Amino acid sequence: MQSEEPIIRSVQNIDWEPRLAQRTRRMESSVIREMLKFTTQPDVISFAGGLPAPELFPVREFQEACRHVLETDGPTSLQYSPTEGFLPLKEYLADAMSRYGIMVEVENILIVNGSQQGLDLVGKLFVDPEACVVCSRPTYLGALQAWNAYEASYCTVPMDENGTLVDELEAQLKKGTRPRFIYELPNFHNPAGNTLSLERRQRVAQLAREYDLVLIEDDPYGELRFEGEDLTPLFRLAPERTLYLSTFSKTLAPGIRLAWITAPKPIIHRLVQAKQGADLHTGTFVQMVANDICQRGILRQHVRRLRQVYRQRRDAMMDAIAEHFPQEVTFTKPLGGLFLWARAPEAINTRDFLLKAVAAKVAYVPGFAFYPGEQGGEHSMRLNFSNASIEMINEGIYRLGRAMKEELAHGG
Amino acid sequence: MQSEEPIIRSVQNIDWEPRLAQRTRRMESSVIREMLKFTTQPDVISFAGGLPAPELFPVREFQEACRHVLETDGPTSLQYSPTEGFLPLKEYLADAMSRYGIMVEVENILIVNGSQQGLDLVGKLFVDPEACVVCSRPTYLGALQAWNAYEASYCTVPMDENGTLVDELEAQLKKGTRPRFIYELPNFHNPAGNTLSLERRQRVAQLAREYDLVLIEDDPYGELRFEGEDLTPLFRLAPERTLYLSTFSKTLAPGIRLAWITAPKPIIHRLVQAKQGADLHTGTFVQMVANDICQRGILRQHVRRLRQVYRQRRDAMMDAIAEHFPQEVTFTKPLGGLFLWARAPEAINTRDFLLKAVAAKVAYVPGFAFYPGEQGGEHSMRLNFSNASIEMINEGIYRLGRAMKEELAHGG
Repeated sequence: MQSEEPIIRSVQNIDWEPRLAQRTRRMESSVIREMLKFTTQPDVISFAGGLPAPELFPVREFQEACRHVLETDGPTSLQYSPTEGFLPLKEYLADAMSRYGIMVEVENILIVNGSQQGLDLVGKLFVDPEACVVCSRPTYLGALQAWNAYEASYCTVPMDENGTLVDELEAQLKKGTRPRFIYELPNFHNPAGNTLSLERRQRVAQLAREYDLVLIEDDPYGELRFEGEDLTPLFRLAPERTLYLSTFSKTLAPGIRLAWITAPKPIIHRLVQAKQGADLHTGTFVQMVANDICQRGILRQHVRRLRQVYRQRRDAMMDAIAEHFPQEVTFTKPLGGLFLWARAPEAINTRDFLLKAVAAKVAYVPGFAFYPGEQGGEHSMRLNFSNASIEMINEGIYRLGRAMKEELAHGG
Repeated sequence: MQSEEPIIRSVQNIDWEPRLAQRTRRMESSVIREMLKFTTQPDVISFAGGLPAPELFPVREFQEACRHVLETDGPTSLQYSPTEGFLPLKEYLADAMSRYGIMVEVENILIVNGSQQGLDLVGKLFVDPEACVVCSRPTYLGALQAWNAYEASYCTVPMDENGTLVDELEAQLKKGTRPRFIYELPNFHNPAGNTLSLERRQRVAQLAREYDLVLIEDDPYGELRFEGEDLTPLFRLAPERTLYLSTFSKTLAPGIRLAWITAPKPIIHRLVQAKQGADLHTGTFVQMVANDICQRGILRQHVRRLRQVYRQRRDAMMDAIAEHFPQEVTFTKPLGGLFLWARAPEAINTRDFLLKAVAAKVAYVPGFAFYPGEQGGEHSMRLNFSNASIEMINEGIYRLGRAMKEELAHGG
């Protein structure tokens, strides 16, 4: 450093907000992420997150895979690589998806940094400011966060225990709504915990075709089905117009940020362009490590174990709710995934009540967080069952039930 | 899968382009990436890429770090983690940057997926459609690609061997250009190979302050200085208005996609929001592995080795150019980094000439690729010296020189 350097440093702060792009007015921190900060006191049992069970992560298999990849492909695994993704991993995925009736070639797949990047790229490609997007209410918060940055507006369709109400969807489209796409989370919905029935999947695909619309099928939990048969993906029903997103976050581990988009080749080409500008490519090393684990058949084994454990936790939560919650509480029975959606009595506003829950050392996400720019979910809550032991689930649901009963007894 | 499932699959293709957002009209694949595909024939010596030398990657150290991280922090390293980045890694970076006079706290740092994501987030926060951005000509192609997606327009300032011509910059600003920011690549510019002098750094900082503008300082190569003293970063000269970007891609390895942004806290807060929507967070595992390597002091050692080897390669390339290129060719002497910028005689259009070069089994990137939406660089070429052995550099420059001489002899 030159000694004659004149230090014209200033401690003054400049005002950043007036310098920012229009779209930033719609960008805010995730309510969940902000809330999680204050629910992570050590003795709070939190059902608020969406975290997989860390004690089940295949750590030893990761160790073995890292060793193997670095030994056999050391320099290649640390070098730049194509935006499209690591070919052997895409071959594995093409094969794996064929079990669900998704028959594609490697050129139909783009590897991304977690599904959140998939949602962001979808927004970048399809959403003009004020353009409308159709989604359910409630819907996945991360999708709203991604698309808010592109200034989307939302046309929402209500759901019941079988997913999106397709008649309401049709009514929306008949009214002349011309959305950029319809967003569906057909399996074990986050936050609603429901699953789109086969009949409704067929109707959604038909409507998309009739109105010539794009479908975004978000399927992070599909492999985590606890009971019943797999239902046909929308991608299979309308492959010419569907972008199918899935991820390793819930099956393998979220900390490697690895997911993929499956879509028709022309739109993969556009997604690749968008991803080049966004971050060049997904990490070479983590792709090769995940591929190593997948190719040894470890992932399939591991998913079987996850299904078993998460199913036990779901059952424990449902049993505990039946035992400890006020009678008036209703909830969806999720057939898989990580979340259960409960509706409290009218007297309980779950947003206000959260403070009392945290005082009782238990946390959830209030339903309002999942409603795009409108009222809704005031009496609902999302409860995560993947990230707590059965013992903690019992204790946490007991605490929450007691707090709700007290709230009801004191008239809200 | 249900057997009664009606297959309404269609092989018909739908037309995607009319469904896409306005911004996609500005998005295209990188000229370099497209060109690289056709210059990767096995016997072509390519100076076209920007790849670090893979034979120097610290593979063994990565192996050790992966083992150590998984052994000591297994589940944590595979779990979701904060958007802001892994705290110990940010502590290391705050300390490392202080050697260059950048005195910051961890809250001034956001870890991102490679510098390209840093550039994308900058575009997302600052660029409205048609908003103007000031950059040099030529400039870094990846920045243009990131900001094209936000429909930036570019006001460009020419350079000489000491970087941006600050009088020209001032003239632009005096004319009333109100850019969202000024983009600078002060150390060992990609593609121009030049370094912004201390005097000009001071002028740039002064002008930014005088016109109340934001500075984007992109510094991927700063640590790879072969000779001379480090020059004061713009961040130090105008810390209240500078976003400083740097990366592990050129010092450690690009395949882990790890970089960071250093900036005033209010804008870090906004960058965190943007990154949440873009991909939640940077991979936990790769951050912890890089941190392990950094904390052991391996990175500093490794960078010393890189400087030595790349310097030898730069020298070899300059010597070979002096020996084999036509006399009329001029070039910048880079004081560090990965690239050298050469200007061929007027008779050679480097875009057209590339075909002949590839026929002669050697490749480069033609200069036009680095000029945002305007003429320029028709007779220039970018030559990378980090990714070829001295023997290959000699042979490749010999081939290129011979092809140029033939071109000149035949009148272009």
